[in-house]
Amino acid sequence: MTDLVTFGETMLRLSPPDGERLETTDDLELRAAGAESNVAVAASRLGASAAWTSKLPDSPLGRRVVSSLRQHGVETDVVWSDDGRQGTYYLEHGGKPRGTNVIYDRAGAAVTTAESEELPVERVREAERFHTSGITPALSETLESTTADLLAAAREAGTTTSFDVNYRSKLWDPAEARETMETLFPDVDLLLVAERDARDVLGREGDADDIAAGLVEEFDFETVIVTRGEEGALARHDGEVYEQSAIETDTLDPIGTGDAFLGAFLARRLAGDGVATALEYGSATAALKRTIPGDVAVVTREEVESVLAEEGGEISR
Amino acid sequence: MTDLVTFGETMLRLSPPDGERLETTDDLELRAAGAESNVAVAASRLGASAAWTSKLPDSPLGRRVVSSLRQHGVETDVVWSDDGRQGTYYLEHGGKPRGTNVIYDRAGAAVTTAESEELPVERVREAERFHTSGITPALSETLESTTADLLAAAREAGTTTSFDVNYRSKLWDPAEARETMETLFPDVDLLLVAERDARDVLGREGDADDIAAGLVEEFDFETVIVTRGEEGALARHDGEVYEQSAIETDTLDPIGTGDAFLGAFLARRLAGDGVATALEYGSATAALKRTIPGDVAVVTREEVESVLAEEGGEISR
Amino acid sequence: MTDLVTFGETMLRLSPPDGERLETTDDLELRAAGAESNVAVAASRLGASAAWTSKLPDSPLGRRVVSSLRQHGVETDVVWSDDGRQGTYYLEHGGKPRGTNVIYDRAGAAVTTAESEELPVERVREAERFHTSGITPALSETLESTTADLLAAAREAGTTTSFDVNYRSKLWDPAEARETMETLFPDVDLLLVAERDARDVLGREGDADDIAAGLVEEFDFETVIVTRGEEGALARHDGEVYEQSAIETDTLDPIGTGDAFLGAFLARRLAGDGVATALEYGSATAALKRTIPGDVAVVTREEVESVLAEEGGEISR
Amino acid sequence: MTDLVTFGETMLRLSPPDGERLETTDDLELRAAGAESNVAVAASRLGASAAWTSKLPDSPLGRRVVSSLRQHGVETDVVWSDDGRQGTYYLEHGGKPRGTNVIYDRAGAAVTTAESEELPVERVREAERFHTSGITPALSETLESTTADLLAAAREAGTTTSFDVNYRSKLWDPAEARETMETLFPDVDLLLVAERDARDVLGREGDADDIAAGLVEEFDFETVIVTRGEEGALARHDGEVYEQSAIETDTLDPIGTGDAFLGAFLARRLAGDGVATALEYGSATAALKRTIPGDVAVVTREEVESVLAEEGGEISR
Amino acid sequence: MTDLVTFGETMLRLSPPDGERLETTDDLELRAAGAESNVAVAASRLGASAAWTSKLPDSPLGRRVVSSLRQHGVETDVVWSDDGRQGTYYLEHGGKPRGTNVIYDRAGAAVTTAESEELPVERVREAERFHTSGITPALSETLESTTADLLAAAREAGTTTSFDVNYRSKLWDPAEARETMETLFPDVDLLLVAERDARDVLGREGDADDIAAGLVEEFDFETVIVTRGEEGALARHDGEVYEQSAIETDTLDPIGTGDAFLGAFLARRLAGDGVATALEYGSATAALKRTIPGDVAVVTREEVESVLAEEGGEISR
Amino acid sequence: MTDLVTFGETMLRLSPPDGERLETTDDLELRAAGAESNVAVAASRLGASAAWTSKLPDSPLGRRVVSSLRQHGVETDVVWSDDGRQGTYYLEHGGKPRGTNVIYDRAGAAVTTAESEELPVERVREAERFHTSGITPALSETLESTTADLLAAAREAGTTTSFDVNYRSKLWDPAEARETMETLFPDVDLLLVAERDARDVLGREGDADDIAAGLVEEFDFETVIVTRGEEGALARHDGEVYEQSAIETDTLDPIGTGDAFLGAFLARRLAGDGVATALEYGSATAALKRTIPGDVAVVTREEVESVLAEEGGEISR
Repeated sequence: MTDLVTFGETMLRLSPPDGERLETTDDLELRAAGAESNVAVAASRLGASAAWTSKLPDSPLGRRVVSSLRQHGVETDVVWSDDGRQGTYYLEHGGKPRGTNVIYDRAGAAVTTAESEELPVERVREAERFHTSGITPALSETLESTTADLLAAAREAGTTTSFDVNYRSKLWDPAEARETMETLFPDVDLLLVAERDARDVLGREGDADDIAAGLVEEFDFETVIVTRGEEGALARHDGEVYEQSAIETDTLDPIGTGDAFLGAFLARRLAGDGVATALEYGSATAALKRTIPGDVAVVTREEVESVLAEEGGEISR
Repeated sequence: MTDLVTFGETMLRLSPPDGERLETTDDLELRAAGAESNVAVAASRLGASAAWTSKLPDSPLGRRVVSSLRQHGVETDVVWSDDGRQGTYYLEHGGKPRGTNVIYDRAGAAVTTAESEELPVERVREAERFHTSGITPALSETLESTTADLLAAAREAGTTTSFDVNYRSKLWDPAEARETMETLFPDVDLLLVAERDARDVLGREGDADDIAAGLVEEFDFETVIVTRGEEGALARHDGEVYEQSAIETDTLDPIGTGDAFLGAFLARRLAGDGVATALEYGSATAALKRTIPGDVAVVTREEVESVLAEEGGEISR
Repeated sequence: MTDLVTFGETMLRLSPPDGERLETTDDLELRAAGAESNVAVAASRLGASAAWTSKLPDSPLGRRVVSSLRQHGVETDVVWSDDGRQGTYYLEHGGKPRGTNVIYDRAGAAVTTAESEELPVERVREAERFHTSGITPALSETLESTTADLLAAAREAGTTTSFDVNYRSKLWDPAEARETMETLFPDVDLLLVAERDARDVLGREGDADDIAAGLVEEFDFETVIVTRGEEGALARHDGEVYEQSAIETDTLDPIGTGDAFLGAFLARRLAGDGVATALEYGSATAALKRTIPGDVAVVTREEVESVLAEEGGEISR
Repeated sequence: MTDLVTFGETMLRLSPPDGERLETTDDLELRAAGAESNVAVAASRLGASAAWTSKLPDSPLGRRVVSSLRQHGVETDVVWSDDGRQGTYYLEHGGKPRGTNVIYDRAGAAVTTAESEELPVERVREAERFHTSGITPALSETLESTTADLLAAAREAGTTTSFDVNYRSKLWDPAEARETMETLFPDVDLLLVAERDARDVLGREGDADDIAAGLVEEFDFETVIVTRGEEGALARHDGEVYEQSAIETDTLDPIGTGDAFLGAFLARRLAGDGVATALEYGSATAALKRTIPGDVAVVTREEVESVLAEEGGEISR
Repeated sequence: MTDLVTFGETMLRLSPPDGERLETTDDLELRAAGAESNVAVAASRLGASAAWTSKLPDSPLGRRVVSSLRQHGVETDVVWSDDGRQGTYYLEHGGKPRGTNVIYDRAGAAVTTAESEELPVERVREAERFHTSGITPALSETLESTTADLLAAAREAGTTTSFDVNYRSKLWDPAEARETMETLFPDVDLLLVAERDARDVLGREGDADDIAAGLVEEFDFETVIVTRGEEGALARHDGEVYEQSAIETDTLDPIGTGDAFLGAFLARRLAGDGVATALEYGSATAALKRTIPGDVAVVTREEVESVLAEEGGEISR
Repeated sequence: MTDLVTFGETMLRLSPPDGERLETTDDLELRAAGAESNVAVAASRLGASAAWTSKLPDSPLGRRVVSSLRQHGVETDVVWSDDGRQGTYYLEHGGKPRGTNVIYDRAGAAVTTAESEELPVERVREAERFHTSGITPALSETLESTTADLLAAAREAGTTTSFDVNYRSKLWDPAEARETMETLFPDVDLLLVAERDARDVLGREGDADDIAAGLVEEFDFETVIVTRGEEGALARHDGEVYEQSAIETDTLDPIGTGDAFLGAFLARRLAGDGVATALEYGSATAALKRTIPGDVAVVTREEVESVLAEEGGEISR
């Protein structure tokens, strides 16, 4: 049995080297990247048995996605399609004041037509945990209802569900996002939300604890985690509040930080750890992720524990 | 005034290095590539004043296309669009028996919505020559009628029109292609067609000369050029037949050979050369192209003439 | 249940780019490579359920091996060790007359201490086929007896065993190799041997058919395949002779050709095809492998079948 | 009509990757680079119609310069020469305390023989603005008088002239530089000078405002801009003083910062903006430039405006 | 005559680019690296006549080590061996909190069997200075006695000996290290030790001066240098104390900092400078080293002196 | 004592990767390259004690040349100059019909002012052999007389002199070349000349043997070697004729073939071998060189002997 099943789009990420611009570069790095598969990778690397399900074009590009995830021990359960594209995104990393620029090229992706009938719903039901994010229902109407179906199926079967708000302004506007997500929340056990999204999208006010408390109250989540960037994270779980500080990093690539955090958190929860310990692992895994190029946390549990033991950051020889 | 205006889609071409596979490579080379802009580049580099018109997304990807063409002195006259994608294609080069594999990712490209009203029709009318290919009408219904409009406008204004059959089996089937193209042929002065396409798509029979003669007879083309791979090309022009042999090459990248051939041919015709001489330049430019990575012929007129003078192929120092 | 289990050493392969020399290069390509895992990769990519078992150091280098194999869908069942190295080999590709030079750095590899007690023998027993090669017993005395144990266990359980002679002059001399291998042959069902090794190591004489017939007679193999480089292969199976021609290739990297051949052969046999068809798939997979950098055949069944249908070698677009 | 014509040397810049040293690197990045063409690129990208004129060797190296500038929409009006070299410079980027080291290899460049008779003086006369820098007259006696001729021709025709002091200690000493420049100043409308050069080369004293005021008084400049590194810039124009702060950056490549600043400033002045607004655009363009490898500001007007709106520096997705 | 002879293992260092992980990278940089040869390189580049002696496998890998050292003018006096490996190490650079991870693969290296009889002892005797480090005796029992032999031979011949403690926790534990080193100390004139190693390995207490004083008292060293990372270094020599501050750097690669320091120090001592001056050169060379990828200080004496004159860190053009 | 001293210019060679063009590439490979230092490298690698003398700019570029030669064990005896450039050449490799294009950028190189007074003439006198080529006197009038001086000094001291005609049409015309070289020939013992140069420059007629015989007769050379590309070489020495066939190669980089040939020939002559054996080594070294990128033969004597034993060209493992 798989501990964790995640569902969502995984794209190919194309990025020029070292500050170069898409307009002039001749070279692109190619990596697979997707919020939900990033979570599965982090969970797998931290020891969970993790799977990812989605719909991909039957092409070298779709196969590339699968190969990349398998590297990290993630099982893939994919509907291969003759229609639809492989979604991609182009990424330019620039320092201040340029920032990191993401150009999505995901319209018409095969996954946008994925219906729950063709997906491995039984597997979701049998898993201990099921995870998806707010990106998925934003991609198409079909995916909106598929997401709802899967969350409902999971909930019904006793699979613990998690949902990362992951608001993307290039996909929809806050009002749409809020409306859609709030219809999904009743089937969600664990909600992860960035403090900014909580305010701008979910219309929350107050500090992180107010946000978490309000969300629990309104939607009856078992767990709410509010991430706060360099200020760490705050969780509410079964009426208790947990504060987790962030670890200082030399950031090479910030993309995927939240997914690494959540993947590690879920892995430790699946392994039986409490929320406080799981948050610590999440925080250390997220910190390591930021030192690694690409969307996924290519780390080991030993490395995460070494960060927690404050041994990292020097030369080990 | 521009000598030559070309119209069509220019894509971004993404290819792994040296025989690597898309499924496993971490690196892609990025280049701009499109049949009609390839023709414009070759013509410009051989001395013509050449322009390319199309519709592109207003994004770094669209700008990349323009930057790439400008490098070669091609003027770009682009409709910038907020809708529609930048078309791309993935290319794997493999030797025998793998062959070269092209994976199009051009669905929903901005150009597919380009209407003649938004394009610089006046410029087409004022040019000496206008060129497009059979790829363009295959891309959308809109482009089918836009292609017809532009060819008609050009013809009406006395601009000499050229059309490269360029059949792409991944875009349409032979019957559709033939039907569409035959509606365009009345407005075409110069037709370029690969011998195989003449047979498989246009339903021609006999040898290259039979093909050319038959096409002239049926559609009243001023010029028909039948390309025959390693066997060179045969042209019919004003009732005369011209045979052009191919030049032996160490092929590094075969993509764009025909476009290089035609671009050079048009440049020499625009410069006043006869068909025989223009075919020679076409042949030499095509041969050089095959030694150069990418879709475009990064050559100079001097290099082409050095090949014609049989000086190439050794160490020049 | 796994169709095929293979056992052997997988190394990291380090090679300089494009004809460069180890003495002066600053860059090395890193890939995982091992005769038996190469077979598993080819079999997996052709549709078999394939696993590889071995012993690896518990380090990023050992994990790299596992990640690489997983990419291709091969299941890994590894004994992680705190002792022993990760074997590597350095590879310089040179054209004629330089040739391809392999420098092994595999002494003291973790796998050299692998005993059958710590390996998943039960899995071998439950598989349909088990494969190893003559490299494995050459690596250490422990591995010599482990190889014997596994072959015996497989044979006893009714798992069909295959063995590729794979003589390596940098590991042992012909006499040693012959003596060791001949003690293993009684438990081998399928023997693959290069014609040259049959002569120089196994002391066979005559043409390929004489070699196959002699080996069958002496060791009662169910199947003997004699590979003959550009002249193809000859098989004897259940008293019948099969001749398979080789497919012409533009060779980019010859390493792993035999493994690709055998992996595809085994996959088709597992799928129920006869020897003749399996040899055809083997031959086409081997031909494709030679166009791909690295030890493994990154191909699909569709590509292999396209080669068999003689459709390859041109531009597909 | 072209808005802005610039004149000067553009070199090929050769630099090793990531902190590597010229003495040991095997790889060099190749880019085109020149103070005056950098200004033209920035102006063009910010919306001006910009041209660059110079003299180049008729070789692939000279053509490379032209191709590179055309990418950015800069029109090139070049005298092609059979004599003279293509100037190059080698660049090593090192962090503290190594610093950035520039090794010029520009002796004997074709441009050093450029006389005003062969250059497009009429074009300079017809432009709205003409720009050159203190590097140009430092390169040869011929260029000293050509620079004087062009400034005089521009001034006479009512073209607004600008001049960047750009003192280069590897080309001449402060006394020579001052003497030469002061003979040119009477034909200069806008002077850009780094505060340090104002002191060390032009012998100015006091703070930035004193410097600007003194220069205006002595040479009757319409505009003087004093750049002050991280402290921003100060301008005097028509008796008014403008102070512009610098924007904090993660600097990847500082070369070309001043050129980006000035190019953007000129583009906005040409578009009708006042000095204050033009300085803001200059400052934001300069800040973006520092995040981009190479000498030129590969930016868009939208990006510059996003920096001014303080939206940059985060992940945009 | 050679001024300085060093003895020790030089490995090949294999590292992935820019934060990538060994588990997923396809590319490795290859460099030669070894504490004692690093010292020889720095000394040679600062003007000393320096040689390095060791035992290497007679293979392209061994030759690579020699080629790399020769680049910097170091003379190599090598015993070529048919047995034993070329030691390597894998290096992952990660920012905080990942740190820099070194994975040694040096077991069974040819050098581990090097006996003093086969090494150029006469050359050591004739040199002015001989240097080795605490890594060497840690590698094998043979090397422990060879190190003792060479130090004794040097001392007897009047060659000044230096020894860098260089404790490596992946090779031995502190108690073993201390015991072995203390048997060598009687033949050591100059001891270099990191403050942390002095405490953790040599059991010293107090501040840096206490450490130096204690070591001088106990072992009668002529010179003791205690390095203190960002706090610089402290030396005791002939009863005097010298404090040397560290220079601020933008660190690209910290490996080899101490070796660069010591190599420069020895070069200046050999050139007749006093301890204070030699420490200054050491400090500046170490600072430059940190801006350069690889283990060795690819610097010139002029650059070092420019750092001492506080001229570095800006653009020099 | 050094066996062989060579004198000439060594340039930095800058070449784009894999068929790319200088006009569009962003990457250049950097290598040191010079006819006479290539000879020294080949000789050194084949076992001779070889030195190279020249004049170089005191810059990282000049030091790069020295570092590169030292790698191969060549001793460098260089006059460091504050004036003059580091010569470079740009190289584009193209297959047929493009050929290999060399663009020299060597005007004003420091070496062009090298006078015999500043060069190590004593070292030339003490060597067994001295070598230079027809490129050297073509570079400047100063070098013409310096070449004459060194050949005369060598001859006088009993040092055997060799001279490779090496005609370069981009440096001078045949008549000039012939006139200059013929004044040098009286001091030359061994002449190497390509058959084509013998005809086109030296005005020889007949077959290779006629050419050799005629040259011996007219100039009293001890040895004349006529190289004939794929047809091998012919030598006349002490009245005897030696024919040496060429070895078939997969050519990756033809530059430096003749230098490799001669360097190996000289090394074997210095080692006491006869002309026939030395020609064989020359031929095998030249063949290996063609498989290696760059100007120099990075080979070992064992590899050369393996080619002679016809063992090369396969996989050695």
